[in-house]
Amino acid sequence: MEAFSDGVFAIAITLLILEIGVPTGSEDDLLKALADQWLSYLAYLVSFATIGAVWIKHTVITEYLDSATSVLIRLNLLLLMVVSFLPFPTRLVAEHIREEEAERVATAVYGINLLLASVLVGVLWRYAVGARLVRPDATDEDVAMLTKRLTPSLAGYVAMIVLGLFLPVLAVFGYLAIAVYIVAPFRAMRHRVAEA
Amino acid sequence: MEAFSDGVFAIAITLLILEIGVPTGSEDDLLKALADQWLSYLAYLVSFATIGAVWIKHTVITEYLDSATSVLIRLNLLLLMVVSFLPFPTRLVAEHIREEEAERVATAVYGINLLLASVLVGVLWRYAVGARLVRPDATDEDVAMLTKRLTPSLAGYVAMIVLGLFLPVLAVFGYLAIAVYIVAPFRAMRHRVAEA
Amino acid sequence: MEAFSDGVFAIAITLLILEIGVPTGSEDDLLKALADQWLSYLAYLVSFATIGAVWIKHTVITEYLDSATSVLIRLNLLLLMVVSFLPFPTRLVAEHIREEEAERVATAVYGINLLLASVLVGVLWRYAVGARLVRPDATDEDVAMLTKRLTPSLAGYVAMIVLGLFLPVLAVFGYLAIAVYIVAPFRAMRHRVAEA
Amino acid sequence: MEAFSDGVFAIAITLLILEIGVPTGSEDDLLKALADQWLSYLAYLVSFATIGAVWIKHTVITEYLDSATSVLIRLNLLLLMVVSFLPFPTRLVAEHIREEEAERVATAVYGINLLLASVLVGVLWRYAVGARLVRPDATDEDVAMLTKRLTPSLAGYVAMIVLGLFLPVLAVFGYLAIAVYIVAPFRAMRHRVAEA
Repeated sequence: MEAFSDGVFAIAITLLILEIGVPTGSEDDLLKALADQWLSYLAYLVSFATIGAVWIKHTVITEYLDSATSVLIRLNLLLLMVVSFLPFPTRLVAEHIREEEAERVATAVYGINLLLASVLVGVLWRYAVGARLVRPDATDEDVAMLTKRLTPSLAGYVAMIVLGLFLPVLAVFGYLAIAVYIVAPFRAMRHRVAEA
Repeated sequence: MEAFSDGVFAIAITLLILEIGVPTGSEDDLLKALADQWLSYLAYLVSFATIGAVWIKHTVITEYLDSATSVLIRLNLLLLMVVSFLPFPTRLVAEHIREEEAERVATAVYGINLLLASVLVGVLWRYAVGARLVRPDATDEDVAMLTKRLTPSLAGYVAMIVLGLFLPVLAVFGYLAIAVYIVAPFRAMRHRVAEA
Repeated sequence: MEAFSDGVFAIAITLLILEIGVPTGSEDDLLKALADQWLSYLAYLVSFATIGAVWIKHTVITEYLDSATSVLIRLNLLLLMVVSFLPFPTRLVAEHIREEEAERVATAVYGINLLLASVLVGVLWRYAVGARLVRPDATDEDVAMLTKRLTPSLAGYVAMIVLGLFLPVLAVFGYLAIAVYIVAPFRAMRHRVAEA
Repeated sequence: MEAFSDGVFAIAITLLILEIGVPTGSEDDLLKALADQWLSYLAYLVSFATIGAVWIKHTVITEYLDSATSVLIRLNLLLLMVVSFLPFPTRLVAEHIREEEAERVATAVYGINLLLASVLVGVLWRYAVGARLVRPDATDEDVAMLTKRLTPSLAGYVAMIVLGLFLPVLAVFGYLAIAVYIVAPFRAMRHRVAEA
């Protein structure tokens, strides 16, 4: 399960670049054409950081797992599907920048996809804890801390999705902030795991 | 063989998203344009669930295998080819929705590809059993149960392909039901394998 | 090196399907449109079978290797590049069928790529033998037999490339025959390796 | 981390071919059309060689690593992002050849991406040494030699980027020379690692 999941994460994160279109018909001023699609690069960065963050969370979870049930395997497939779907709204945002109405729809769809990925990682861990699939040598403290840290930034994503209805571009920056924030706090924990 | 197969499954399942086109020229009402292509998302879901189901079956088979012959390797390559081919009819269905005649052809081609993947997994297992490649510690009961469970949902797929000639959209829902049904019954068995 | 190579083979073989275009603007008779591009499916089949054959050869070689030098790693990268390039001429053949002149060029380019992959696998093995990188427990007989079997079907490919200048479609069938022929004779050897 | 990174390198290197467009509408003289886009093949070769070189460097680094911190994991993600981005400027160069102005912009963007990948590999190693993540059995001599060899060919890339503003095509050949030069000097070192 781990090798397959790692493969899907690695492929999804690398496929993102295929969604960023090269500006065509811009012989005269390619530099300007490239600069004009800066939101495409931002969307690429957000999706890359988010998949990276979800992958790190997933790695921490599988490190703590002792065994798997078919429910866990199906939950995991669901998470992988949501992650694999991300290139679609990434392209949506990249292609509909600067279009008054469409921009709002695109960033909302994008935010919902990011939110779902975050929610599903949390569900995966909570299920694993509830079904007693966690390694016996993991302390209650570890489990509690991990549960807290894996709690999806629900409020953050919902706030950004709502904000995106008025200020779409700002919402995309918000998604980036959440992804970067998620990656950060794992430092201490992983250190401890390494020491154990 | 296992790493290579896992890789192909992971790539095929992740590539599916590239077949779902982003609606273009829909500045005014992107939401409606996105909603209108709901069958594309359904096709994505069906293909993802089917590859996921075939991957789970494949994992169970390789868990039981003791050794490999060149015939097994070639049968496996054939299965991987059929699985790798799935993005093609997925796009076919996604692009030809709501086109009276074409829709029927697309769903039929799609169903045949799904059926072939299911048949080949069954053939792979039956060949492995016949050629005595199964682990010696596997009980006859296990082998019999697995044989039964791996028996392709032949009747189901054939029924849906025929149904699809009259009601294409319903057939696609049928393909989804079969994929979900295939994933389900492995719970008990995998549990047992884990305990052993 | 093995994991990386396996990854590249798995990705290249799975990407092939992206090169097969879905017929567009064929609402009336999709079945005919699908049937008309049969050479595309043949090219897909040939490329899949060839990459599969090269992957099997590569697996046999790495099984016999004891260590690696930087020259081997670079030769291996070169082989991977030639294999990764295959989707390009595959699409070339798929798109230029039934175009008098272009067809000949496309099948010739395709054949040269297939030939190069076959030649490089042979070079990799001969280099490994020459640089004494082969496992000490491999008998001289094994090495000699493997050398013979890995000898690229040079004559076959050259004949087909020349034939393709007159009868392009027949040449593509010839490439298929060579790929299938290459996969075949490894049966006995792999069996022996498994027994050892 | 290693499996995930290897996966990303393998995927990025294999995706490159998707950026090389097949000439269309060239029924009459496909050979000429293919020859005319020779710079596309050169860009493919440069990107393949560069990702290959970065992958080899990355392999050497992970061989020397004893443990990982979250900073290292994030630096690694950053490197993977830069490598994954390479298909974009590769396509940019392939599509804007022979366009006076655009060509200069495309090769400069390309060079900056190649430079960044090279810089980040160096940063990754220096961080690992500074944070004492290197295996204790690695001698100071080894570390010093590796540091020297991993030092990005900064000067070379900067010179080529500047040269590219005047002679874009020559700069692309320069990028190729740097990639090939980077791959070369690891021979002795890897040999030693193998002997240890």
